[in-house]
Amino acid sequence: MSAHTKSVAIFDTTLRDGMQGLEINYSLEDKLSIAKKLDEIGIDYIEGGFPLSNDKEAAFFNHCKSMSFSHAKIASFGSTRKPGGKAESDGHIRALLEAQTPVVVIVGKTWMAHVEKVLGTTAKENLAMIADSISFLKREGREVVFDLEHFFDGYKDHRDYALEVLKTASHAGADVLVPCDTNGGTLPHEVSAIYEDLKSQSLAPLGGHFHNDCGTAVANSLAAVQGGAVHIQGTINGWGERCGNANLCAIMPNLTLKMGYHAACADHMEKLTSLSRFVAEKANIIPDKRQPYVGIASFSHKAGQHADVILKAAHLMEHLDGSLVGNHRQVLLSELAGKSTIVEKMKKYGSFEKNHPAVETLIRTLKDKENDGYEYEAAEGSFDLLMRQALGEYKQLIELKNYHLESYKTANAQSKTVGRMFLSDQGREVMGAAVCIGPVETLDGSLRDALSPHYPFLDGLRLTDYRVRVLNPESASAAKVRVFITSTNGDEEWTTVGVNENIVEASWEALVDSYEYYYNNHYEELPPEAR
Amino acid sequence: MSAHTKSVAIFDTTLRDGMQGLEINYSLEDKLSIAKKLDEIGIDYIEGGFPLSNDKEAAFFNHCKSMSFSHAKIASFGSTRKPGGKAESDGHIRALLEAQTPVVVIVGKTWMAHVEKVLGTTAKENLAMIADSISFLKREGREVVFDLEHFFDGYKDHRDYALEVLKTASHAGADVLVPCDTNGGTLPHEVSAIYEDLKSQSLAPLGGHFHNDCGTAVANSLAAVQGGAVHIQGTINGWGERCGNANLCAIMPNLTLKMGYHAACADHMEKLTSLSRFVAEKANIIPDKRQPYVGIASFSHKAGQHADVILKAAHLMEHLDGSLVGNHRQVLLSELAGKSTIVEKMKKYGSFEKNHPAVETLIRTLKDKENDGYEYEAAEGSFDLLMRQALGEYKQLIELKNYHLESYKTANAQSKTVGRMFLSDQGREVMGAAVCIGPVETLDGSLRDALSPHYPFLDGLRLTDYRVRVLNPESASAAKVRVFITSTNGDEEWTTVGVNENIVEASWEALVDSYEYYYNNHYEELPPEAR
Repeated sequence: MSAHTKSVAIFDTTLRDGMQGLEINYSLEDKLSIAKKLDEIGIDYIEGGFPLSNDKEAAFFNHCKSMSFSHAKIASFGSTRKPGGKAESDGHIRALLEAQTPVVVIVGKTWMAHVEKVLGTTAKENLAMIADSISFLKREGREVVFDLEHFFDGYKDHRDYALEVLKTASHAGADVLVPCDTNGGTLPHEVSAIYEDLKSQSLAPLGGHFHNDCGTAVANSLAAVQGGAVHIQGTINGWGERCGNANLCAIMPNLTLKMGYHAACADHMEKLTSLSRFVAEKANIIPDKRQPYVGIASFSHKAGQHADVILKAAHLMEHLDGSLVGNHRQVLLSELAGKSTIVEKMKKYGSFEKNHPAVETLIRTLKDKENDGYEYEAAEGSFDLLMRQALGEYKQLIELKNYHLESYKTANAQSKTVGRMFLSDQGREVMGAAVCIGPVETLDGSLRDALSPHYPFLDGLRLTDYRVRVLNPESASAAKVRVFITSTNGDEEWTTVGVNENIVEASWEALVDSYEYYYNNHYEELPPEAR
Repeated sequence: MSAHTKSVAIFDTTLRDGMQGLEINYSLEDKLSIAKKLDEIGIDYIEGGFPLSNDKEAAFFNHCKSMSFSHAKIASFGSTRKPGGKAESDGHIRALLEAQTPVVVIVGKTWMAHVEKVLGTTAKENLAMIADSISFLKREGREVVFDLEHFFDGYKDHRDYALEVLKTASHAGADVLVPCDTNGGTLPHEVSAIYEDLKSQSLAPLGGHFHNDCGTAVANSLAAVQGGAVHIQGTINGWGERCGNANLCAIMPNLTLKMGYHAACADHMEKLTSLSRFVAEKANIIPDKRQPYVGIASFSHKAGQHADVILKAAHLMEHLDGSLVGNHRQVLLSELAGKSTIVEKMKKYGSFEKNHPAVETLIRTLKDKENDGYEYEAAEGSFDLLMRQALGEYKQLIELKNYHLESYKTANAQSKTVGRMFLSDQGREVMGAAVCIGPVETLDGSLRDALSPHYPFLDGLRLTDYRVRVLNPESASAAKVRVFITSTNGDEEWTTVGVNENIVEASWEALVDSYEYYYNNHYEELPPEAR
């Protein structure tokens, strides 16, 4: 609607409040790689965690010191000092300083009932804790974000005290005051009315932090911005405690692409879909297909009348061009959309018309494979091999005759797996064997044992990622699984896919594709005896 | 907030617009059983489908005639008559009459661009089609709901024509006029402004129908009601085309439990969670754990400190008592869990002080296990066994001596796995064997083969979910994996966890815990020979 120049800072708490979500647990490596992606999309603040809580959290801040972020500021999170103490000698506050982040988030109590019943202190001491903690951190040169825990419940219960907390934090020098709807029970019309009331107070700039317990966290965030907030907190995919935090994957495009607000992320919204899926992959949670903007169904159209209109005039059937958020239209059951994508991909091997037999073959193969559970969006390596096969340009490296794995487990001892494998190598039968712990490692060992003598390039290849997803969990132990394997030669990286009811076999498929991909794409560089 | 007596009618389109959702397909039996449940919770209108589209849709209306609904009215759905024809002889309109529903929904074009480019008719003829269709159905004694397709886009593009459509339908006798945000691109502040504008028109009562493409469909529905709408359309779980329809599972409790509106469903909100899961079961879609009000995580609490407050005063940490919507509180375990969470969990076995030796032991065990990659917040079954071990109340069912798996793969044939297993069963050595495809299925088969003769209850246990997460993917094929297995006896459900570098061994651990959990928790019910 109306364009204006008001700016909003986007504050991501995927790595802190988001970690409170059910089944959410990021490793240190996950957290670091997510932080890089958040920076790339133009997130203004990345809240990395609670340095006092455990070593993993502290290690994150340590690693961040040596990383370069192009735009984002890293923030550590902690609470106000303890009742009766001093900020400079408080363990929580010290841990925040030691995290050495330019930004520090301090959370304080705003709801009188919490001050008395949970914190077990007085209204006055709570104000002193807030003032002391903020002003100490300001003296230490930090940018201070003050999170007002349970602000909305506190305001409804005891408005005067909630306002006093705001004023105290403002006077103590907080750079931004963030009313938090910690229990998630606030509705948009309440948010609007409360921010309207706050306008008349003379305070530091306001932010907003919402949870989705009423299904309105995104709308609450927009209402806060319209009510004057200049800083919005949320998480990627909206994952967080209980029903989650406000979903930045909806807030960012709503604010920048629809409402005309300015934010650093506005220039990178085409990375949104890929960011959403990256975080889902790290969380090992199947992304919500129906998620606004970034879900795979968000721009899908069922065949028939709607799809027809899409071809005539897409803007009549879509609220937004999906490519603006890095998503794409899916016309289900329509081959036309698919073919242009295929032709685009095949450009690597030349210029093909949509009705070229290789295009037709590839469309059919893809359809069959996708029905079987394969997915090529994240497995470009395997897709490359399918293209080569359709074009008759595929060179086989690994021709399996058979493999045999034996896993032994004796009580209280680590299991071991023995593998033997026969392959045909240009007519010769070659054999490999290995003893490892798990079956996948054993297959890889046996394969290398068989082929490395003739194909020394295998020694330079390394697997860097291995991911498993169960496709039909309801079939339990007989379920079909999809395995992705990412490999590298130290320079390039490629991902391949395998699907089977047997997880070992699915892994084998992805493993074979990984080596075949390298072999086919580096054939010309190989010494003649390794071709 | 403020209580008032304004009533809102809840119109459910799970069985019509909801069927446009990706992967959503209900059988006739599913549709009938869902309709019964919708009636039981006090839904006012149930839109059953498009009688002209296929036999299944027509059959639904036929069956409904002989069913008794305690409150809900059944509605059939169709579009206005064709350009240039007459309502009484139009195929669509005839099909609506033949469905013999007390309520008929007619959808008509509102956006000028759609009238011209999609319908290929004139602005004037579109108005005639609307007037003719509605007045004919009114003469036939039907209650007529008029859906204004693309109303919001039409209004923004050409306000006068959108208003003319509203007036035409109102004069023709429509009982309710329902502006539809068909493309889902409208934000709450726009909804408020547009309903404000409509107030000054003298029209039949207004409704609202929203899609979730901006993540604000629930908020849009609330804004419409606050702007004067007395009829809200949506679906159970918010499932529908693209990002879905407005989610009635959030709208109903927001309106009735929080905003004080009157609706027939207000008296049955304790059935909401079970309705949500019933529809998920029929759709064969795993319900969103994070869904507001009805998700299994909606009233879950993770962090140590929070859990502490829950014990002191739940209303300070929950926006609503979950039992009001038929949900329940869950206190989760995690690496941040404190002693009070543990003590709370141990209540199952008695009342323990925080410094009880079993509490101390359990804390230590949890810490070690979590360092090894175990995670218990989603694996209450395994946690129960740890508690029993700490308390010395654990009875071992499965004492493994050894197992041996052989996987054979020959080129172009599906791999097979042969398993043999020796267990000690109260001093006796028992043996089991199985041949299956994958190793996990084979282990399960061998275990059942060994134990079922003495423990017939094993036949009644079934695995319902199997999830794998690679913990250190950078170690590639030698990575450590965590496996979760969910099991059921048809009545209860429990989840167990295993971690190992060997995926087979991790699965085995989770499998053993699953059976041990049942054995320990149902020991007293077992026949003496199976104890």
